[in-house]
Amino acid sequence: MSLLEATCTDIVDTDEEAARVTQSLLDGKTKPRRSLGRLEDIACKIAAITRCPRPPLPSKAIVVMAGDHGVAQEGVSAYPSEVTRQMLLNFARGGAAINVLARQVGARLVVVDMGVRGSEEEIPGVLSRRVRPGTDNFVHGPAMSVADAVLALEHGIAIAQGLTESGVGVVGIGEMGIGNTTAASALLAAFSGTPPYAITGRGTGIDEATWLRKITIIRKALAVNPPAGKSALEILAALGGFEIAGLAGVVLGAASRRVPLVLDGFIASTAALCAAKIAPNAAQYLIASHCSVEVGHEIVLKALACDPLFDLGMRLGEGTGAALALPLVEAALRILDEMASFDEAHVTDTGR
Amino acid sequence: MSLLEATCTDIVDTDEEAARVTQSLLDGKTKPRRSLGRLEDIACKIAAITRCPRPPLPSKAIVVMAGDHGVAQEGVSAYPSEVTRQMLLNFARGGAAINVLARQVGARLVVVDMGVRGSEEEIPGVLSRRVRPGTDNFVHGPAMSVADAVLALEHGIAIAQGLTESGVGVVGIGEMGIGNTTAASALLAAFSGTPPYAITGRGTGIDEATWLRKITIIRKALAVNPPAGKSALEILAALGGFEIAGLAGVVLGAASRRVPLVLDGFIASTAALCAAKIAPNAAQYLIASHCSVEVGHEIVLKALACDPLFDLGMRLGEGTGAALALPLVEAALRILDEMASFDEAHVTDTGR
Repeated sequence: MSLLEATCTDIVDTDEEAARVTQSLLDGKTKPRRSLGRLEDIACKIAAITRCPRPPLPSKAIVVMAGDHGVAQEGVSAYPSEVTRQMLLNFARGGAAINVLARQVGARLVVVDMGVRGSEEEIPGVLSRRVRPGTDNFVHGPAMSVADAVLALEHGIAIAQGLTESGVGVVGIGEMGIGNTTAASALLAAFSGTPPYAITGRGTGIDEATWLRKITIIRKALAVNPPAGKSALEILAALGGFEIAGLAGVVLGAASRRVPLVLDGFIASTAALCAAKIAPNAAQYLIASHCSVEVGHEIVLKALACDPLFDLGMRLGEGTGAALALPLVEAALRILDEMASFDEAHVTDTGR
Repeated sequence: MSLLEATCTDIVDTDEEAARVTQSLLDGKTKPRRSLGRLEDIACKIAAITRCPRPPLPSKAIVVMAGDHGVAQEGVSAYPSEVTRQMLLNFARGGAAINVLARQVGARLVVVDMGVRGSEEEIPGVLSRRVRPGTDNFVHGPAMSVADAVLALEHGIAIAQGLTESGVGVVGIGEMGIGNTTAASALLAAFSGTPPYAITGRGTGIDEATWLRKITIIRKALAVNPPAGKSALEILAALGGFEIAGLAGVVLGAASRRVPLVLDGFIASTAALCAAKIAPNAAQYLIASHCSVEVGHEIVLKALACDPLFDLGMRLGEGTGAALALPLVEAALRILDEMASFDEAHVTDTGR
C-alpha cells in the first residue's frame, strides 16, 4: 500500500463521545452554560479529534508551502511569477507577515518549496520538496501528472507526520504562489459545480479587465480538463498546484495522526477540500480560522461544513489567518484546563 | 476644577495625520495593499490615538469592575446577587475565565470592587473602591446619587491614569454584577430612545417569562427616571451601576492619557457609551473586540461607531472578549514594526 493509501485508511471518524464529556466539563465551570460560545465548540472539537476529553495544550506549527503556476503566463495576477521566489526568500529571512505572526503566537514555521520557478539553489531555512519548477499551464492540458500530484501529496503527508512525531499538536496551513487563486477557483468550480464567475475573486488585487480574463481562463481550463467522471486525485492533478497538493497532503497526514488543522484563506481551504474529496473523514479534523475577502472562500468553507471564527477583511494568505486563530485554540483549551468549577470556587450554580 | 472635569478637558481629538503615515508605512510592507484588512485599521487607529505613526508594543491591562444592583431584587437574573461576591472571590483566586485569558495574553488583571453586597471585609488581590454595597432599585428612584456617580467615575479615572503612569499602553475593560444587563439596557434605552424590548436580552440565561418581566422592569425604571432633559451624568446616576460608572471613568481616564481602550460585551460597551455621552471625544479612543449574543450590544457599538473584530457567540462579560482581542492589537503593531518592506526584501512592488 502506498503512503497515500495507508494515510487515507488511517483517517477515522473523530470521537463525539470525548466531545460530550468535554462539554459537560465546560458546563461545570464558573460561567453561565455555553456563555463562551465558539470557544467551547473549539475545545469540544479538539477533544473529538484527539479522542481526549481534556486535551493538553498543543505545541503549534504552521506549514507554508510555495509553488509556481503555469497559468500565471496568462496574466491573471497583479504580480509576476518572480514574486513567488522573492517571497520565499523573504520567508527565509523572517520578514514576511507570517514570520511576524508565527513568532508572536509561538508557532514553529515550516516553509516548503514545493515547486517554485527560478534558481535551483536551495534556500537556507526552506525545506526543498520541489516536484518541478512550476506547474504546466492548465489552459493547454493538466497542470501536472497524477504521479506528480501523488508525489506532492506524499511530501505533505510526510512533513505533517514528521511534525506530529516531533510533538506538534496543532497544524496551521498557508501558501504562497503567484497565480494560485486561479488554480483554487478552477478546483472549486470542478468540485462544486459552481460557475467560475461566482467563485473568482480579485486575488492580490487585479482590475476588472484582468478579473474578466481570469474567469475566461478558468472556463477554458475546465473545458480542456473536464472534471466529469474524474477522481478527486485526477482533478487535483489537472487544475491544482504543487503547493495546493502538498497542503492537501499535510491535511491528510495530520488527520491520520488525529491532529487538528487550522485553515487559512481561500487557497489553503481549497487544498483542504481536495484532501476531503480524497479522504472524506479528513473534513472532521479541520478548524476554519477566518473568512477572507476572496469570494470563493465562503463557498469552500460551506462545502467543508466549517464555520470561520472571524472575518477581518484579510486576503494575504501565507497562513496569516491561521496564525491569528491559534491563540483562540489555545484559549479554548486553557479555559477547559484552568478555570475553576462551581464546586471548587463555591459559586452558586443555577444550572442556567 | 474637579478630576472629572479636568479629565474630560484633556480628551482631545485623535491624530488622523499619524494614522495616514502609518497606512503609508503598511503600504510599503511585502504584501498586497490593504491585504491585512482590519489589522491595518487597528494599527492606524492606535497611531491616531497615541499620536505616533509607529507605536511601540504596549504593556496591557484589563480592568474588571464588579458591583451589585438593587434591581436584582426584581428577579431579572438567572443568578442571585450573592454570585457577584462569589465571583469576586473567584477572580481573586485566579479561577474565573478572565483570569485564564488575561494570563494567556500577558495582561495585568486589575479587579475592582466598586460596590458589591455582602461582607465589608476586603478581599486580597481586589482593589476596594466600594461606593456603597449595591445600588438602589431604580424602579423606585435613581440607582445612585449624582455625587456617588461622580465618585465612581473618579475612581475609574484614577485607576486608569495610575495604570498609564505605570506604563500600561492599552486597557481592556470588563465587568461582573448580577442584574447589570438590566441596568445597561435601561441606560441604552435612555440614551438611544430605542424601545426596551429591542435591546433587552437573556443576560446570563433567563427564560421567556423572566425576560418579559425584565422588559417591564426597564419600562418602569424609565417612567420613574425619565431621561428627557437630563444630563448624561444624571442618566448614568439614575439607571447605571457602580461598576458601569467606574468603567466609564476608566474610559475617560485612559482617553485623557491617549491610551486605547478595548471594549468587551454589552455592559462594558454601554459604560463606554456613557463616557462618550459625558465627553464625546472619548469615542475616538475605543476599539471594539467582539459582538456578543446580548441583543443590545450591536446597537451600542453602532452608537459608538465601533465595528467589532469578531463574533464568537460569547456572552460572559468579565472582559473575556477584550482579552481575546489583545493578541490582534499586538499582531497589528508587530506587523507595522517587524515586517520587511518591498525595498528591504527586494520583492517586486506593482503598487497593487
